Amino acid sequence: MAQKYATREEDYSKWYNDLVYRADLAEHSDVRGCMVIKPYGYAIWEKMREILDVKFKETGHSNAYFPLFIPKSYLSKEASHVDGFAKECAVVTHYRLKNAEDGSGVVVDPESKLEEELIVRPTSETIIWNSYKNWIQSYRDLPILINQWANVVRWEMKTRLFLRTTEFLWQEGHTAHATKQEAIAETEQMLNVYADFAENYMAMPVIKGRKTANERFAGADDTLCIEAMMQDGKALQAGTSHFLGQNFAKAFEVKFADKEGKLEYVWATSWGVSTRLMGALIMTHSDDEGLVLPPALAPIQVVAVPIYRSQEELDSITTKIKNLAAKLKSKGISFKYDDDENHRPGWKFAEYEAKGVPVRVAMGPRDLENGKAEVARRDTKTKEVVDFEGLDSYIEQLLNEIQSNLLNKAKAFRQENTKTIDSYEEFKKEIEKGGFFLAHWDGTSETEDKIKEETKATIRCIPFDIPLEEGVCMVTGKPSKGRVIFAKAY
Amino acid sequence: MAQKYATREEDYSKWYNDLVYRADLAEHSDVRGCMVIKPYGYAIWEKMREILDVKFKETGHSNAYFPLFIPKSYLSKEASHVDGFAKECAVVTHYRLKNAEDGSGVVVDPESKLEEELIVRPTSETIIWNSYKNWIQSYRDLPILINQWANVVRWEMKTRLFLRTTEFLWQEGHTAHATKQEAIAETEQMLNVYADFAENYMAMPVIKGRKTANERFAGADDTLCIEAMMQDGKALQAGTSHFLGQNFAKAFEVKFADKEGKLEYVWATSWGVSTRLMGALIMTHSDDEGLVLPPALAPIQVVAVPIYRSQEELDSITTKIKNLAAKLKSKGISFKYDDDENHRPGWKFAEYEAKGVPVRVAMGPRDLENGKAEVARRDTKTKEVVDFEGLDSYIEQLLNEIQSNLLNKAKAFRQENTKTIDSYEEFKKEIEKGGFFLAHWDGTSETEDKIKEETKATIRCIPFDIPLEEGVCMVTGKPSKGRVIFAKAY
Repeated sequence: MAQKYATREEDYSKWYNDLVYRADLAEHSDVRGCMVIKPYGYAIWEKMREILDVKFKETGHSNAYFPLFIPKSYLSKEASHVDGFAKECAVVTHYRLKNAEDGSGVVVDPESKLEEELIVRPTSETIIWNSYKNWIQSYRDLPILINQWANVVRWEMKTRLFLRTTEFLWQEGHTAHATKQEAIAETEQMLNVYADFAENYMAMPVIKGRKTANERFAGADDTLCIEAMMQDGKALQAGTSHFLGQNFAKAFEVKFADKEGKLEYVWATSWGVSTRLMGALIMTHSDDEGLVLPPALAPIQVVAVPIYRSQEELDSITTKIKNLAAKLKSKGISFKYDDDENHRPGWKFAEYEAKGVPVRVAMGPRDLENGKAEVARRDTKTKEVVDFEGLDSYIEQLLNEIQSNLLNKAKAFRQENTKTIDSYEEFKKEIEKGGFFLAHWDGTSETEDKIKEETKATIRCIPFDIPLEEGVCMVTGKPSKGRVIFAKAY
Repeated sequence: MAQKYATREEDYSKWYNDLVYRADLAEHSDVRGCMVIKPYGYAIWEKMREILDVKFKETGHSNAYFPLFIPKSYLSKEASHVDGFAKECAVVTHYRLKNAEDGSGVVVDPESKLEEELIVRPTSETIIWNSYKNWIQSYRDLPILINQWANVVRWEMKTRLFLRTTEFLWQEGHTAHATKQEAIAETEQMLNVYADFAENYMAMPVIKGRKTANERFAGADDTLCIEAMMQDGKALQAGTSHFLGQNFAKAFEVKFADKEGKLEYVWATSWGVSTRLMGALIMTHSDDEGLVLPPALAPIQVVAVPIYRSQEELDSITTKIKNLAAKLKSKGISFKYDDDENHRPGWKFAEYEAKGVPVRVAMGPRDLENGKAEVARRDTKTKEVVDFEGLDSYIEQLLNEIQSNLLNKAKAFRQENTKTIDSYEEFKKEIEKGGFFLAHWDGTSETEDKIKEETKATIRCIPFDIPLEEGVCMVTGKPSKGRVIFAKAY
């Protein structure tokens, strides 16, 4: 119990890692860069997945599944895509093992070498457009609105649980359209789906915007994104939606006959979020005692712990709690009663605090006598003694309050740590403290590169929701059409 | 429209393949042995997955996720496991590509060779038990009841859509227990979950039983299975549940301290079903017109098609159908209204027949006048004119009837094609016609091998539910404790 965990102040990065272990979310596996997502962490991811899946279906998408392996040559078909993705990836070269002649185990059978190597998908545009080629002949076959839930692999040299792992889980939407306008509308729609999910379920405010050419997806004409601020002031890109133009249609020769019978290249989008959202969720709300979860994503929303000395006391408390459990269940609130006799109440309190359970109900003999219960909320760490009568409604309201409190707190934090800045000298000092900086930029990659080199900050996005204001670039003094957001990022 | 599809009679195997394409379930990809699961096929798999997932959770299991890659040496740790699985599998040997010097595309960077090759998981016992090793210290850490939904790869030389593909989707349960009895009870429980799912959702009767040593999972002490009969009389193994004894605990040195503090090896089970169930579903019910789906797994349970000459007629029909749609929705029945004007009703009828939609409602001007609708059921291909008033309740009942009719039909088919047989000479002739054969066997692998060699039939299982009856082996005349089930199998 007395294990010492790092606080955010002491060592933010260690705090994060400690927390992932302490809350039993995930752990490093023995396979370099790959993680094991443990049941409690996976339950949160499952909630995210379920909510997003409904939203995808409501917007007309269907799920499908495409192969894990991509022939090496496919990656080369789209020129900028290959530069972005065909580098650090897992390559399958053989398809058979055999017993070693010296009896030491198994070795790769050299005779099983593949004619063409297979790449474990880092993203699926190429393999999917290779299929779409056969699915699309006429405008009647469009749009194609498909999503895939899958694992992908990008060979990362430096990994961090959830934030950057060699294998990760994600969803990737891949759509095909007859017109440019329709594809752009789809790109925007899915960005809005992500932003809505981030704010209303993750309680994580995000800035919607457009990536600069430097930060664009390899193969996209335009990349839209949502950017969130973590508690150390760094930015985290939480989701992206790409307008791919006709790039993949051209690379894979996908044309359709329009109503007049004229052959045209198909327009495309792709969009995705990943288990990285777990990292974003953790770093947006959690504190030095452990995970803090918004009720909308908490696998256990309410936990009840009995405090007793005799079996008789326990039985009376249990009867009361069972009654509460039934009422919460009928309200769709997930509930756990922890009457495990191997642990003391204090241990349990710390445990559920570490796991971010939003509401804790404790009941002892005196509460029982008085018709009360002690209700503790995880977000503010405040406790209150509440009438047992009507406790279910009280809790229901409290969960809503916690959900909106977390969002408001995160919004306030972001506001405090967002500054408008005009001097590059000042910027260089301020950026070290973290936060978002609204600054003018001359629109060139050169200036962006210079800033990145000198400060490690990047342009997170050209935001949609701030008014355009002309000015001059803080670095070069050249004209600028509006402020962009600079930050250091995960 | 006039494309000719193979009938079951003409060419069963071609009929199957044609049907998978015609119903738009899946297709071969350009990657050898890997399939693309198309949206309609995936929607059926999703239904299976959702139902099973609820059952797994109801029986106390949680989902988690373990790495895709397994270090080569892990496979060698369990002696019989390596023989069964470490042979035909995808081997990752490198982690980087680079631009070819001649500008021809990308090539594998020889400097990125891995020290130890990684195997794309063919099943996850080894990687999971390598994690459990760190999770289990005492009896308090047990049981561990985890399931994983994942993709796996087994390099198959001869592949068939859904039935045998290099990559497939599945779930794999992996549990750890303090006692042998508890592990055996878990193995049996999960077999019953599978059998219940097969009968009550897939409408597919199955025989529960035990595999012979020859057919056992590589690394198991005991393999239980459910076996179904396809329409060509062949058997299909639809799910397996393995009692793994202490084999993996010993291979990975996983011990726990019992209540007395004594160190003991942990007991294990694993169990799985895969996208192979899609093949089983197709071959159990479908006919020469296409797919036949049990309502419990149909993505669209009811389709309505308007028949009209004028916009006015269409509008009146649409109003009626919208009304029906709302009522069906409130009953939880999935419904599609196909008023696409690009296709004629006849085309639509054939299309939904091919896709196995259980109930079709057609409504024309005369029906409208008479307050009627034409209701066609896919399973019997019969039609009836029904009062529009109360049509929702009629349909609800009809769906239940179709569900049980399909199960009964499949049961009757299996019964007709199951024979008790005592002469090996007769067996050799009869087995060519397909079907299940209940025969005596002397219990030796030699006899089993001989029968397989001479007839291609295998022992599907030693069934649980037939009374034990002593006899003599049909081949050797040696004593037998009871009849086992022989069949040719997928």
